[in-house]
Amino acid sequence: MHRTRVRIVEEALDANNTLARANRADFDRAGVAVVNLMSAPGAGKTSLLERVVGDLPGVRVGVLEGDVQGSLDADRLAGLHVPVTQLNTDPGFGGECHLDANMVRSALGALPLAEIDLLVIENVGNLVCPAEFKVGEDVRVMVSSVTEGEDKPLKYPLMFRTCDLVLVNKIDLLEHLDYDLERFLYNLDQVHPGVQRMLLSARTGEGVDAWRQWLGGLVRDRLGVPA
Amino acid sequence: MHRTRVRIVEEALDANNTLARANRADFDRAGVAVVNLMSAPGAGKTSLLERVVGDLPGVRVGVLEGDVQGSLDADRLAGLHVPVTQLNTDPGFGGECHLDANMVRSALGALPLAEIDLLVIENVGNLVCPAEFKVGEDVRVMVSSVTEGEDKPLKYPLMFRTCDLVLVNKIDLLEHLDYDLERFLYNLDQVHPGVQRMLLSARTGEGVDAWRQWLGGLVRDRLGVPA
Repeated sequence: MHRTRVRIVEEALDANNTLARANRADFDRAGVAVVNLMSAPGAGKTSLLERVVGDLPGVRVGVLEGDVQGSLDADRLAGLHVPVTQLNTDPGFGGECHLDANMVRSALGALPLAEIDLLVIENVGNLVCPAEFKVGEDVRVMVSSVTEGEDKPLKYPLMFRTCDLVLVNKIDLLEHLDYDLERFLYNLDQVHPGVQRMLLSARTGEGVDAWRQWLGGLVRDRLGVPA
Repeated sequence: MHRTRVRIVEEALDANNTLARANRADFDRAGVAVVNLMSAPGAGKTSLLERVVGDLPGVRVGVLEGDVQGSLDADRLAGLHVPVTQLNTDPGFGGECHLDANMVRSALGALPLAEIDLLVIENVGNLVCPAEFKVGEDVRVMVSSVTEGEDKPLKYPLMFRTCDLVLVNKIDLLEHLDYDLERFLYNLDQVHPGVQRMLLSARTGEGVDAWRQWLGGLVRDRLGVPA
Protein backbone atom coordinates (compact mmCIF):
# COMPACT_ATOMS: atom_id res chain seq x y z
CA MET A 1 0.00 0.00 0.00
CA HIS A 2 2.71 2.44 1.01
CA ARG A 3 4.70 1.82 -2.18
CA THR A 4 1.62 2.37 -4.37
CA ARG A 5 0.81 5.61 -2.64
CA VAL A 6 4.28 6.98 -3.13
CA ARG A 7 4.20 6.16 -6.82
CA ILE A 8 0.94 8.07 -7.27
CA VAL A 9 2.40 11.07 -5.50
CA GLU A 10 5.53 10.94 -7.68
CA GLU A 11 3.42 10.86 -10.83
CA ALA A 12 1.45 13.86 -9.58
CA LEU A 13 4.71 15.73 -8.98
CA ASP A 14 6.02 14.75 -12.43
CA ALA A 15 2.85 16.15 -14.04
CA ASN A 16 3.23 19.27 -11.92
CA ASN A 17 6.83 19.75 -13.04
CA THR A 18 5.79 19.45 -16.70
CA LEU A 19 3.12 22.12 -16.23
CA ALA A 20 5.54 24.32 -14.27
CA ARG A 21 7.97 24.22 -17.20
CA ALA A 22 5.14 25.22 -19.55
CA ASN A 23 4.27 28.16 -17.26
CA ARG A 24 7.92 29.15 -17.12
CA ALA A 25 8.16 29.10 -20.92
CA ASP A 26 5.15 31.42 -21.15
CA PHE A 27 6.64 33.79 -18.57
CA ASP A 28 9.97 33.74 -20.46
CA ARG A 29 8.31 34.60 -23.76
CA ALA A 30 6.56 37.52 -22.08
CA GLY A 31 9.79 38.68 -20.43
CA VAL A 32 8.28 38.46 -16.95
CA ALA A 33 10.32 37.62 -13.84
CA VAL A 34 8.32 35.51 -11.40
CA VAL A 35 8.60 35.28 -7.60
CA ASN A 36 6.86 32.51 -5.63
CA LEU A 37 6.28 34.14 -2.21
CA MET A 38 5.62 31.71 0.65
CA SER A 39 5.26 31.67 4.44
CA ALA A 40 3.20 30.44 7.36
CA PRO A 41 -0.18 32.14 7.87
CA GLY A 42 0.20 35.68 9.16
CA ALA A 43 3.96 36.00 8.68
CA GLY A 44 3.51 39.17 6.65
CA LYS A 45 3.62 38.31 2.92
CA THR A 46 0.92 40.81 1.96
CA SER A 47 2.29 43.54 4.26
CA LEU A 48 5.75 43.14 2.72
CA LEU A 49 4.20 43.40 -0.76
CA GLU A 50 2.24 46.51 0.24
CA ARG A 51 5.57 48.07 1.20
CA VAL A 52 7.18 47.64 -2.23
CA VAL A 53 4.91 46.86 -5.20
CA GLY A 54 3.79 50.46 -5.69
CA ASP A 55 7.31 51.80 -5.35
CA LEU A 56 9.61 49.97 -7.78
CA PRO A 57 10.82 52.61 -10.27
CA GLY A 58 10.69 51.40 -13.85
CA VAL A 59 9.25 48.00 -12.89
CA ARG A 60 5.66 47.14 -13.74
CA VAL A 61 4.41 44.70 -11.10
CA GLY A 62 1.50 42.26 -11.13
CA VAL A 63 0.32 40.04 -8.28
CA LEU A 64 -1.38 36.65 -8.29
CA GLU A 65 -3.05 36.06 -4.92
CA GLY A 66 -3.52 32.46 -3.78
CA ASP A 67 -5.98 31.88 -0.95
CA VAL A 68 -8.21 29.06 0.20
CA GLN A 69 -11.15 31.43 0.27
CA GLY A 70 -11.94 35.12 -0.07
CA SER A 71 -10.06 38.06 -1.57
CA LEU A 72 -8.93 39.95 1.53
CA ASP A 73 -5.28 40.22 0.45
CA ALA A 74 -6.17 41.12 -3.14
CA ASP A 75 -8.45 43.86 -1.78
CA ARG A 76 -5.58 45.23 0.33
CA LEU A 77 -3.28 45.39 -2.69
CA ALA A 78 -5.86 46.80 -5.10
CA GLY A 79 -5.35 50.29 -3.68
CA LEU A 80 -1.73 50.26 -4.89
CA HIS A 81 -2.77 50.45 -8.55
CA VAL A 82 -1.10 47.25 -9.68
CA PRO A 83 -3.01 44.47 -11.43
CA VAL A 84 -4.05 41.81 -8.90
CA THR A 85 -5.57 38.45 -9.88
CA GLN A 86 -7.27 36.26 -7.26
CA LEU A 87 -6.94 32.47 -7.31
CA ASN A 88 -9.02 30.52 -4.77
CA THR A 89 -8.22 26.91 -3.96
CA ASP A 90 -11.43 25.92 -2.20
CA PRO A 91 -13.54 24.24 -4.93
CA GLY A 92 -13.82 20.47 -4.71
CA PHE A 93 -12.31 19.89 -1.26
CA GLY A 94 -12.13 21.62 2.08
CA GLY A 95 -9.52 23.76 0.32
CA GLU A 96 -6.13 23.06 -1.19
CA CYS A 97 -3.29 24.07 1.11
CA HIS A 98 -0.97 25.22 -1.69
CA LEU A 99 -0.81 26.46 -5.26
CA ASP A 100 0.30 24.04 -7.94
CA ALA A 101 1.40 24.59 -11.53
CA ASN A 102 -2.01 23.70 -12.96
CA MET A 103 -3.80 26.26 -10.77
CA VAL A 104 -1.37 28.96 -11.88
CA ARG A 105 -1.77 27.80 -15.49
CA SER A 106 -5.54 28.18 -15.16
CA ALA A 107 -4.96 31.83 -14.18
CA LEU A 108 -2.55 32.67 -17.02
CA GLY A 109 -5.30 34.00 -19.27
CA ALA A 110 -6.32 36.47 -16.57
CA LEU A 111 -2.77 37.80 -16.06
CA PRO A 112 -1.71 40.89 -18.07
CA LEU A 113 1.71 39.40 -18.89
CA ALA A 114 2.40 41.83 -21.75
CA GLU A 115 2.00 44.77 -19.36
CA ILE A 116 4.18 43.67 -16.45
CA ASP A 117 7.87 42.95 -15.80
CA LEU A 118 7.49 41.21 -12.45
CA LEU A 119 4.82 38.78 -11.28
CA VAL A 120 4.64 38.02 -7.57
CA ILE A 121 2.67 34.87 -6.79
CA GLU A 122 1.53 34.99 -3.16
CA ASN A 123 1.07 31.37 -2.18
CA VAL A 124 -1.33 29.93 0.43
CA GLY A 125 -0.01 30.41 3.98
CA ASN A 126 1.61 27.06 4.79
CA LEU A 127 5.19 25.88 5.43
CA VAL A 128 4.78 22.35 4.04
CA CYS A 129 3.12 21.67 0.67
CA PRO A 130 3.78 24.96 -1.15
CA ALA A 131 7.48 24.01 -1.12
CA GLU A 132 6.70 20.75 -2.92
CA PHE A 133 5.04 22.27 -5.98
CA LYS A 134 6.90 24.38 -8.53
CA VAL A 135 4.57 26.80 -10.28
CA GLY A 136 6.93 28.16 -12.95
CA GLU A 137 8.77 30.71 -10.78
CA ASP A 138 12.29 32.08 -11.30
CA VAL A 139 12.93 32.40 -7.59
CA ARG A 140 11.36 31.46 -4.29
CA VAL A 141 11.17 33.95 -1.46
CA MET A 142 9.93 32.96 1.98
CA VAL A 143 8.93 35.07 4.94
CA SER A 144 9.73 33.81 8.44
CA SER A 145 8.33 35.89 11.28
CA VAL A 146 10.38 36.11 14.47
CA THR A 147 7.16 35.44 16.41
CA GLU A 148 7.16 31.86 15.07
CA GLY A 149 10.25 30.78 17.01
CA GLU A 150 13.82 29.79 16.15
CA ASP A 151 13.09 26.14 15.42
CA LYS A 152 11.12 26.49 12.19
CA PRO A 153 13.97 25.71 9.73
CA LEU A 154 14.48 22.38 11.50
CA LYS A 155 10.75 21.57 11.53
CA TYR A 156 9.95 22.58 7.95
CA PRO A 157 13.28 21.95 6.21
CA LEU A 158 12.05 21.62 2.59
CA MET A 159 10.59 25.13 2.63
CA PHE A 160 13.78 26.71 3.97
CA ARG A 161 16.02 24.54 1.77
CA THR A 162 14.32 25.36 -1.54
CA CYS A 163 14.04 29.15 -1.20
CA ASP A 164 16.44 31.71 -2.66
CA LEU A 165 15.83 34.46 -0.12
CA VAL A 166 14.55 34.42 3.48
CA LEU A 167 12.83 37.57 4.73
CA VAL A 168 13.01 37.58 8.55
CA ASN A 169 10.02 39.78 9.36
CA LYS A 170 8.62 41.58 12.43
CA ILE A 171 12.04 42.42 13.88
CA ASP A 172 10.39 45.39 15.61
CA LEU A 173 9.01 42.80 18.08
CA LEU A 174 12.41 41.25 18.92
CA GLU A 175 12.76 43.14 22.20
CA HIS A 176 9.41 41.77 23.40
CA LEU A 177 10.08 38.10 22.57
CA ASP A 178 12.14 35.26 23.99
CA TYR A 179 13.56 34.72 20.51
CA ASP A 180 17.22 33.97 19.87
CA LEU A 181 17.98 35.43 16.44
CA GLU A 182 21.45 33.90 16.37
CA ARG A 183 19.94 30.49 17.05
CA PHE A 184 17.45 30.96 14.19
CA LEU A 185 20.24 31.93 11.77
CA TYR A 186 22.29 28.95 12.93
CA ASN A 187 19.29 26.63 12.32
CA LEU A 188 18.75 28.24 8.91
CA ASP A 189 22.37 27.55 7.96
CA GLN A 190 21.96 23.95 9.10
CA VAL A 191 19.27 23.30 6.48
CA HIS A 192 20.33 25.84 3.81
CA PRO A 193 23.92 26.99 4.35
CA GLY A 194 24.54 30.58 3.31
CA VAL A 195 21.10 31.26 1.85
CA GLN A 196 20.53 35.00 1.42
CA ARG A 197 18.54 36.54 4.27
CA MET A 198 17.26 40.00 5.17
CA LEU A 199 16.06 41.27 8.55
CA LEU A 200 13.12 43.63 8.24
CA SER A 201 9.86 44.92 9.60
CA ALA A 202 6.87 45.53 7.37
CA ARG A 203 5.38 47.52 10.25
CA THR A 204 8.19 50.05 10.76
CA GLY A 205 9.72 49.83 7.29
CA GLU A 206 13.16 48.90 8.68
CA GLY A 207 15.10 46.86 6.13
CA VAL A 208 12.42 47.19 3.47
CA ASP A 209 14.74 49.10 1.10
CA ALA A 210 16.95 46.04 0.70
CA TRP A 211 13.92 43.92 -0.22
CA ARG A 212 12.81 46.55 -2.75
CA GLN A 213 16.28 46.70 -4.29
CA TRP A 214 16.49 42.93 -4.46
CA LEU A 215 13.27 42.79 -6.49
CA GLY A 216 14.52 45.56 -8.77
CA GLY A 217 17.77 43.67 -9.32
CA LEU A 218 15.87 40.51 -10.13
CA VAL A 219 13.97 42.26 -12.91
CA ARG A 220 17.11 43.99 -14.26
CA ASP A 221 18.91 40.65 -14.38
CA ARG A 222 15.95 39.12 -16.19
CA LEU A 223 15.75 41.91 -18.75
CA GLY A 224 19.52 42.02 -19.14
CA VAL A 225 19.69 45.68 -18.11
CA PRO A 226 22.86 46.75 -16.25
CA ALA A 227 22.20 48.15 -12.79
CA MET B 1 -11.00 15.53 -14.82
CA HIS B 2 -12.18 17.79 -12.06
CA ARG B 3 -15.11 15.52 -11.21
CA THR B 4 -12.84 12.45 -11.05
CA ARG B 5 -10.41 14.20 -8.78
CA VAL B 6 -13.12 15.19 -6.35
CA ARG B 7 -14.43 11.66 -6.19
CA ILE B 8 -10.99 10.29 -5.32
CA VAL B 9 -10.63 12.85 -2.55
CA GLU B 10 -14.07 11.98 -1.17
CA GLU B 11 -13.16 8.30 -1.09
CA ALA B 12 -9.96 9.13 0.76
CA LEU B 13 -11.94 11.13 3.32
CA ASP B 14 -14.47 8.29 3.66
CA ALA B 15 -11.66 5.85 4.41
CA ASN B 16 -10.21 8.35 6.87
CA ASN B 17 -13.54 8.69 8.67
CA THR B 18 -13.81 4.90 8.99
CA LEU B 19 -10.34 4.74 10.54
CA ALA B 20 -11.08 7.71 12.78
CA ARG B 21 -14.14 5.87 14.16
CA ALA B 22 -11.97 2.82 14.83
CA ASN B 23 -9.46 4.99 16.70
CA ARG B 24 -12.26 6.59 18.66
CA ALA B 25 -13.62 3.18 19.66
CA ASP B 26 -10.19 2.17 20.94
CA PHE B 27 -9.86 5.41 22.91
CA ASP B 28 -13.37 4.87 24.33
CA ARG B 29 -12.56 1.34 25.45
CA ALA B 30 -9.46 2.63 27.22
CA GLY B 31 -11.40 5.52 28.81
CA VAL B 32 -9.11 8.14 27.30
CA ALA B 33 -10.31 11.63 26.35
CA VAL B 34 -8.59 12.86 23.19
CA VAL B 35 -7.79 16.44 22.11
CA ASN B 36 -6.69 17.25 18.55
CA LEU B 37 -4.57 20.39 19.00
CA MET B 38 -4.04 22.46 15.87
CA SER B 39 -2.60 25.82 14.77
CA ALA B 40 -0.36 27.59 12.27
CA PRO B 41 3.40 27.05 12.72
CA GLY B 42 4.73 28.85 15.76
CA ALA B 43 1.39 29.84 17.30
CA GLY B 44 2.35 28.21 20.60
CA LYS B 45 0.83 24.70 20.77
CA THR B 46 3.84 23.19 22.52
CA SER B 47 4.30 26.16 24.86
CA LEU B 48 0.65 25.94 25.91
CA LEU B 49 1.08 22.21 26.56
CA GLU B 50 4.23 22.82 28.60
CA ARG B 51 2.16 25.13 30.79
CA VAL B 52 -0.44 22.51 31.72
CA VAL B 53 0.42 18.85 31.09
CA GLY B 54 2.56 18.47 34.19
CA ASP B 55 0.05 20.24 36.40
CA LEU B 56 -3.37 18.59 35.99
CA PRO B 57 -4.20 17.10 39.42
CA GLY B 58 -5.59 13.58 39.14
CA VAL B 59 -5.28 13.49 35.36
CA ARG B 60 -2.69 11.28 33.70
CA VAL B 61 -1.68 12.94 30.42
CA GLY B 62 -0.03 11.51 27.31
CA VAL B 63 1.05 13.42 24.20
CA LEU B 64 1.30 12.33 20.58
CA GLU B 65 3.55 14.76 18.69
CA GLY B 66 3.00 15.14 14.94
CA ASP B 67 5.80 16.79 12.97
CA VAL B 68 7.06 16.65 9.42
CA GLN B 69 10.54 15.96 10.73
CA GLY B 70 12.49 15.85 13.97
CA SER B 71 11.45 15.53 17.61
CA LEU B 72 12.06 19.07 18.92
CA ASP B 73 8.63 19.44 20.52
CA ALA B 74 8.68 15.94 21.99
CA ASP B 75 12.09 16.71 23.48
CA ARG B 76 10.70 19.90 25.07
CA LEU B 77 7.83 17.96 26.67
CA ALA B 78 9.91 15.00 27.80
CA GLY B 79 11.16 16.96 30.80
CA LEU B 80 7.61 17.16 32.15
CA HIS B 81 7.53 13.43 32.93
CA VAL B 82 4.54 12.57 30.76
CA PRO B 83 4.68 9.88 28.09
CA VAL B 84 5.37 11.48 24.68
CA THR B 85 5.19 9.59 21.39
CA GLN B 86 6.66 11.07 18.21
CA LEU B 87 4.97 10.65 14.83
CA ASN B 88 6.85 11.97 11.78
CA THR B 89 5.06 12.54 8.49
CA ASP B 90 8.05 12.84 6.17
CA PRO B 91 8.49 9.33 4.71
CA GLY B 92 7.40 8.93 1.09
CA PHE B 93 6.88 12.56 0.14
CA GLY B 94 8.34 15.95 0.93
CA GLY B 95 6.32 15.57 4.13
CA GLU B 96 2.62 15.33 4.88
CA CYS B 97 1.18 18.62 6.08
CA HIS B 98 -1.30 17.03 8.51
CA LEU B 99 -2.03 13.98 10.60
CA ASP B 100 -4.70 11.58 9.37
CA ALA B 101 -6.53 8.75 11.12
CA ASN B 102 -4.28 6.08 9.65
CA MET B 103 -1.11 7.78 10.91
CA VAL B 104 -2.60 8.01 14.40
CA ARG B 105 -3.73 4.39 14.11
CA SER B 106 -0.16 3.34 13.28
CA ALA B 107 0.95 4.96 16.55
CA LEU B 108 -1.72 3.33 18.77
CA GLY B 109 0.55 0.44 19.72
CA ALA B 110 3.14 2.87 21.02
CA LEU B 111 0.64 4.82 23.18
CA PRO B 112 0.25 3.79 26.84
CA LEU B 113 -3.56 4.06 26.68
CA ALA B 114 -4.12 2.00 29.84
CA GLU B 115 -1.99 4.44 31.83
CA ILE B 116 -3.46 7.77 30.74
CA ASP B 117 -6.78 9.63 31.02
CA LEU B 118 -6.09 12.35 28.46
CA LEU B 119 -4.27 12.13 25.14
CA VAL B 120 -3.30 15.39 23.44
CA ILE B 121 -2.47 14.95 19.76
CA GLU B 122 -0.36 17.90 18.63
CA ASN B 123 -0.98 18.15 14.90
CA VAL B 124 1.38 19.49 12.22
CA GLY B 125 1.45 23.30 12.15
CA ASN B 126 -0.96 24.19 9.34
CA LEU B 127 -4.35 25.93 9.17
CA VAL B 128 -5.71 24.03 6.15
CA CYS B 129 -5.49 20.23 5.87
CA PRO B 130 -5.41 19.23 9.57
CA ALA B 131 -9.02 20.47 9.76
CA GLU B 132 -10.06 18.10 6.99
CA PHE B 133 -8.95 14.88 8.67
CA LYS B 134 -10.55 13.50 11.81
CA VAL B 135 -8.14 11.35 13.78
CA GLY B 136 -10.51 9.95 16.42
CA GLU B 137 -10.56 12.95 18.76
CA ASP B 138 -13.31 13.94 21.20
CA VAL B 139 -12.65 17.64 20.74
CA ARG B 140 -10.64 19.98 18.58
CA VAL B 141 -8.72 22.85 20.09
CA MET B 142 -6.97 25.42 17.96
CA VAL B 143 -4.44 28.07 18.85
CA SER B 144 -4.57 31.41 17.05
CA SER B 145 -1.73 33.80 17.84
CA VAL B 146 -2.51 37.51 17.86
CA THR B 147 0.66 38.04 15.79
CA GLU B 148 -1.05 36.33 12.84
CA GLY B 149 -3.60 39.09 12.27
CA GLU B 150 -7.36 39.48 12.64
CA ASP B 151 -8.27 38.03 9.23
CA LYS B 152 -7.37 34.39 9.80
CA PRO B 153 -10.90 33.06 10.55
CA LEU B 154 -12.04 34.44 7.18
CA LYS B 155 -9.04 33.00 5.31
CA TYR B 156 -9.03 29.54 6.91
CA PRO B 157 -12.71 29.05 7.75
CA LEU B 158 -12.82 25.25 7.99
CA MET B 159 -10.23 25.22 10.78
CA PHE B 160 -12.06 27.83 12.85
CA ARG B 161 -15.49 26.33 12.07
CA THR B 162 -14.67 22.77 13.16
CA CYS B 163 -12.95 23.49 16.46
CA ASP B 164 -14.55 23.36 19.91
CA LEU B 165 -12.24 25.85 21.61
CA VAL B 166 -10.06 28.69 20.30
CA LEU B 167 -7.03 29.64 22.37
CA VAL B 168 -6.05 33.22 21.47
CA ASN B 169 -2.38 33.18 22.40
CA LYS B 170 0.44 35.72 22.88
CA ILE B 171 -1.85 38.42 24.30
CA ASP B 172 1.21 39.80 26.13
CA LEU B 173 2.19 41.24 22.70
CA LEU B 174 -1.09 43.04 22.07
CA GLU B 175 0.26 46.45 23.09
CA HIS B 176 3.07 46.15 20.53
CA LEU B 177 0.87 45.13 17.57
CA ASP B 178 -1.56 46.81 15.19
CA TYR B 179 -4.04 44.05 16.02
CA ASP B 180 -7.71 44.71 16.57
CA LEU B 181 -8.88 42.01 19.00
CA GLU B 182 -12.54 43.01 18.64
CA ARG B 183 -12.24 42.63 14.88
CA PHE B 184 -10.71 39.15 15.30
CA LEU B 185 -13.53 38.07 17.62
CA TYR B 186 -16.09 39.49 15.18
CA ASN B 187 -14.48 37.52 12.32
CA LEU B 188 -14.43 34.41 14.50
CA ASP B 189 -18.16 34.74 15.19
CA GLN B 190 -18.77 35.17 11.46
CA VAL B 191 -17.42 31.69 10.72
CA HIS B 192 -18.21 29.95 14.06
CA PRO B 193 -20.81 31.91 16.03
CA GLY B 194 -20.33 31.66 19.80
CA VAL B 195 -17.48 29.15 19.75
CA GLN B 196 -15.74 29.03 23.12
CA ARG B 197 -12.59 31.17 23.24
CA MET B 198 -9.91 31.97 25.81
CA LEU B 199 -7.40 34.83 25.78
CA LEU B 200 -4.04 33.78 27.16
CA SER B 201 -0.28 34.01 27.04
CA ALA B 202 1.92 30.96 27.28
CA ARG B 203 4.82 33.33 27.97
CA THR B 204 3.43 35.17 30.99
CA GLY B 205 0.95 32.51 32.11
CA GLU B 206 -2.01 34.91 31.91
CA GLY B 207 -5.23 33.00 31.25
CA VAL B 208 -3.53 29.62 31.43
CA ASP B 209 -5.57 28.53 34.48
CA ALA B 210 -8.77 28.57 32.42
CA TRP B 211 -7.13 26.34 29.80
CA ARG B 212 -5.94 23.94 32.51
CA GLN B 213 -9.40 23.80 34.08
CA TRP B 214 -11.03 23.23 30.70
CA LEU B 215 -8.84 20.16 30.14
CA GLY B 216 -9.61 18.88 33.63
CA GLY B 217 -13.33 19.32 32.98
CA LEU B 218 -13.05 17.46 29.70
CA VAL B 219 -11.57 14.44 31.46
CA ARG B 220 -14.11 14.56 34.33
CA ASP B 221 -16.96 14.66 31.80
CA ARG B 222 -15.45 11.72 29.99
CA LEU B 223 -14.99 9.65 33.13
CA GLY B 224 -18.43 10.69 34.43
CA VAL B 225 -16.95 12.18 37.59
CA PRO B 226 -18.81 15.18 39.04
CA ALA B 227 -16.72 18.36 39.22
